[in-house]
Amino acid sequence: MSEAGFVDPVLLKQVKVGRDYVAAKYGFRNHWYPVLLSDELDEASPQTAQLCGERILLNRVDGVAYAIKDQCVHKGVPFSKKLECYSKGTVTCWYHGFTYRFSDGLLVGIVGMPHSNVIGRRHVKSYSVVERKGVIFVFVGDEGVEPPPLEHDVPPGFLDEGVAVRGRRQEVAANWRIGCENGFDSTHIFIHKNSRLIKDGDLALPLGLVPTGKESYRVEEDEGGPKGVYDIFSPETVMPVFEGKIGDETVLMGAVHGKNMLPHTISMWLPCALRVDPWPAPHLTQFEWYVPIDGERHTYFQFIATKATTGAEEQAFEREYRDKWIPSALDGFNKDDVWAREASQAFYADDSGWLREQLFEADANIVKWRRLAAKHHRGLQTPQHIL
Amino acid sequence: MSEAGFVDPVLLKQVKVGRDYVAAKYGFRNHWYPVLLSDELDEASPQTAQLCGERILLNRVDGVAYAIKDQCVHKGVPFSKKLECYSKGTVTCWYHGFTYRFSDGLLVGIVGMPHSNVIGRRHVKSYSVVERKGVIFVFVGDEGVEPPPLEHDVPPGFLDEGVAVRGRRQEVAANWRIGCENGFDSTHIFIHKNSRLIKDGDLALPLGLVPTGKESYRVEEDEGGPKGVYDIFSPETVMPVFEGKIGDETVLMGAVHGKNMLPHTISMWLPCALRVDPWPAPHLTQFEWYVPIDGERHTYFQFIATKATTGAEEQAFEREYRDKWIPSALDGFNKDDVWAREASQAFYADDSGWLREQLFEADANIVKWRRLAAKHHRGLQTPQHIL
Amino acid sequence: MSEAGFVDPVLLKQVKVGRDYVAAKYGFRNHWYPVLLSDELDEASPQTAQLCGERILLNRVDGVAYAIKDQCVHKGVPFSKKLECYSKGTVTCWYHGFTYRFSDGLLVGIVGMPHSNVIGRRHVKSYSVVERKGVIFVFVGDEGVEPPPLEHDVPPGFLDEGVAVRGRRQEVAANWRIGCENGFDSTHIFIHKNSRLIKDGDLALPLGLVPTGKESYRVEEDEGGPKGVYDIFSPETVMPVFEGKIGDETVLMGAVHGKNMLPHTISMWLPCALRVDPWPAPHLTQFEWYVPIDGERHTYFQFIATKATTGAEEQAFEREYRDKWIPSALDGFNKDDVWAREASQAFYADDSGWLREQLFEADANIVKWRRLAAKHHRGLQTPQHIL
Repeated sequence: MSEAGFVDPVLLKQVKVGRDYVAAKYGFRNHWYPVLLSDELDEASPQTAQLCGERILLNRVDGVAYAIKDQCVHKGVPFSKKLECYSKGTVTCWYHGFTYRFSDGLLVGIVGMPHSNVIGRRHVKSYSVVERKGVIFVFVGDEGVEPPPLEHDVPPGFLDEGVAVRGRRQEVAANWRIGCENGFDSTHIFIHKNSRLIKDGDLALPLGLVPTGKESYRVEEDEGGPKGVYDIFSPETVMPVFEGKIGDETVLMGAVHGKNMLPHTISMWLPCALRVDPWPAPHLTQFEWYVPIDGERHTYFQFIATKATTGAEEQAFEREYRDKWIPSALDGFNKDDVWAREASQAFYADDSGWLREQLFEADANIVKWRRLAAKHHRGLQTPQHIL
Repeated sequence: MSEAGFVDPVLLKQVKVGRDYVAAKYGFRNHWYPVLLSDELDEASPQTAQLCGERILLNRVDGVAYAIKDQCVHKGVPFSKKLECYSKGTVTCWYHGFTYRFSDGLLVGIVGMPHSNVIGRRHVKSYSVVERKGVIFVFVGDEGVEPPPLEHDVPPGFLDEGVAVRGRRQEVAANWRIGCENGFDSTHIFIHKNSRLIKDGDLALPLGLVPTGKESYRVEEDEGGPKGVYDIFSPETVMPVFEGKIGDETVLMGAVHGKNMLPHTISMWLPCALRVDPWPAPHLTQFEWYVPIDGERHTYFQFIATKATTGAEEQAFEREYRDKWIPSALDGFNKDDVWAREASQAFYADDSGWLREQLFEADANIVKWRRLAAKHHRGLQTPQHIL
Repeated sequence: MSEAGFVDPVLLKQVKVGRDYVAAKYGFRNHWYPVLLSDELDEASPQTAQLCGERILLNRVDGVAYAIKDQCVHKGVPFSKKLECYSKGTVTCWYHGFTYRFSDGLLVGIVGMPHSNVIGRRHVKSYSVVERKGVIFVFVGDEGVEPPPLEHDVPPGFLDEGVAVRGRRQEVAANWRIGCENGFDSTHIFIHKNSRLIKDGDLALPLGLVPTGKESYRVEEDEGGPKGVYDIFSPETVMPVFEGKIGDETVLMGAVHGKNMLPHTISMWLPCALRVDPWPAPHLTQFEWYVPIDGERHTYFQFIATKATTGAEEQAFEREYRDKWIPSALDGFNKDDVWAREASQAFYADDSGWLREQLFEADANIVKWRRLAAKHHRGLQTPQHIL
């Protein structure tokens, strides 16, 4: 019923670029989102998650992951408030004994009312689930919509064979779009000027990147594939600035001496995924998702991927990921990003920030991302969807 | 001024059954409500309470209980923020010395402005109060409405001569209607399946009750008496289910072996009182009230009553109440109800739950209660009443 | 965008007296307000403040105080979240290196984007600042409005030569108008009946003041000077009441025996300043400001002033202020006022209190203040101003 927390329609009318993107405070519908890591979901151990404002309950049954809405259809209480499971693959509501199947949400019984008319007739919403590369993806979709292949909602490379992926997730107190724009923003490298990754990753990290004027973007919008925008960093498209000046005075120096000038491209993909390649080292690619929890928070997924064809290679990468890249990159570097997103939230919280912000030349890639998202998304999350 | 916290009129129009009941988020006006136990109010010791959103100040003067609105008419501050009483039966506002009589709310003086024109002309709202069975009842009524007899707003039996009553109260973080419906709901016995009262009360407690098809409700709506709905439990009307099944599999067993199959009736009464008879033992009756505090909380009164004609009988009952029924029934059994109500609050908090819930056969008594309350209540509490 | 926290226009239409005053929940625009004490702002040490809902950043550069809006124009983050200053008189936004001059708010550089088109073209809002008597005043004004002389917004006497001023500030959880009306209210002396200042200041403090019927107000509204209302206390205009009665019974006694019957006048000045003269002793004057922080809080400035022409006199006053008047008057007496304002806030919080209050004879001076403020203010703070 309530529209509280959604974007004011009067404000929305004043948005000139990417209106649907601004409207998508709770995310886009009919897309795949990562929701848990595979090793977070054990057999017969239901877990909760919140996704685009929807509260779901996941479980693994005979090895297969399922997701249903975490709300009994009878009186609306959450199953997860007091989990009761009496048979394989079902959850029983703690209040009146309504029992639902995880695989399709069907009401298969009512403990204490064995012959009720509603058994076999009612169902709780169930979600399509797929599991790839150690990640559980859930499709937040409308009734009757056939989910597209997962590949259409994941950046290129992530699902490739011969690629090993390791990652983690955390909650961030900022809208998901602030997450996207912080990740895809190239000028914000300014906040990383003292990062430990500069030394650990042997980086040459400038304070800024000045466009040369030559087109440095590439929009991917082919049917039958993921939709995204590339921002390309090469000597032809951008000039790195290592000497920070105010007027004529040099006030700061970037990190000049490392041997790795990375990344070569950053790209942003529907529904909310980033690819940084290569990063944080020449043989690695970083992938990130900024999955809407609600209008004010997102789940920040960080993945590092590399080529690995043998078990030994994968194990070596596992050690490298854990011992080097978690502390240096995922913590040491990206903690500044998490901080910056949370510091940006207040300005955009009532959505007036989308009208009050004053973009500049270096934000051109963000504008392209907003247009692409507004054009190719498959639906808007509305107040009705999160009840 | 503000309608915040009240039911959205657009939503209300979509309610098909018991619309006024759904509208009564803050309770019904022109009814009697229990507010304190008699032994909570000492002579000349003002106590505060909140009731249907209204904040009141009670005091006992020469043994008689009185109640006035806890808000000076001058600048609106609560007397209770800093109680100052300088003469018998009055309270003086700590801010400007406005002094009101508890018995009728009249402004009888202003300390420091002895000849003000407003003395004897203004008054703070005063409430009718009666005290019976160790309980202080307050009438939340409109100006000029003559309160009906207390008997019209209390379940049968509670006020009878030769009946001893003991009870207590606590605050519960759920709307008062959720309290009523949890108490009157017969299928929810499922949540009590592991209660210590099963053993302490020697109960045969099923997991559910299947209606036989024979009418098991009785509506009381005679003029000149309390208005309520009985749900009758007898071999003719319901079949207890002790064997909990999902499909063909028996997954749970109710408590079969106790000798007491209780209660015989549960009934729900305007404005917000429940009667469970007999309960928690064959010689006892339990009475409950779910008194609105505001839109999100209620005061839960629990009483146990028994026949007692002599002082010795009453003392013996007092010991039994304290040593056995408080720990076993009021705590041990009803704590599950308190928990369940608080767990249900989120779904109904914005009132959309009244449209989204999906009732089933066993909720027929609750539907009858909603109709009765919507038909026989004496007024709706509105935003203006709680300023 | 959001009007949340501002006065409901429907309610406002029902206000009969001083409508613009009731509308000014966040204060009046185009006025001077005290914001910090001079010794709270050191050279090159930016400090934040909030004023009429606007968040500002102050700094002292070569001894001169400046103030700019604490929000980067690019993406709206607060500079103060992580202060970075790389050259004299500038602040650099921690996010993308946008660098602004404190003196006029101009964007003078972007570290990492040295040739951006927006440099020298954009600016953050800057505020006029003056510093007098050890107090930093900021003008909360519209673009293009030339600030009037500070003297027009300060009570008579405060800025005089040969006057020494000492003071302090604290945050109070009440709207600024509640602060004004508590300070200017003469009947509220009732709350001070047990104040330690009665003994420390040798006061004869009555419980109330009864108007004799002779006009005791003087309205100052000359062009070219401050606008205010005097309430005059003299044997001709008011009769002090030392004996507090309810009916014929004497229930309380005021402080009769002190030799100082103070003050002689209390006066209230635009935008939000009080003058109590003499107070708390015959050779002193107390000045107070109730500066809006937002709609629910104000900064309470307390100053005591006295004649002092030599450094020795000023030093002696400094000791007297610190050792006697802080504990006795600013703490001991005014803590009751702070408490009373916070206790009044709930009633006026949704602004319905302005319609529900029931004033009486002794509130005539407050009504005059409301009329004066509504007539002579220079603008209303609106939701757009606080984004």
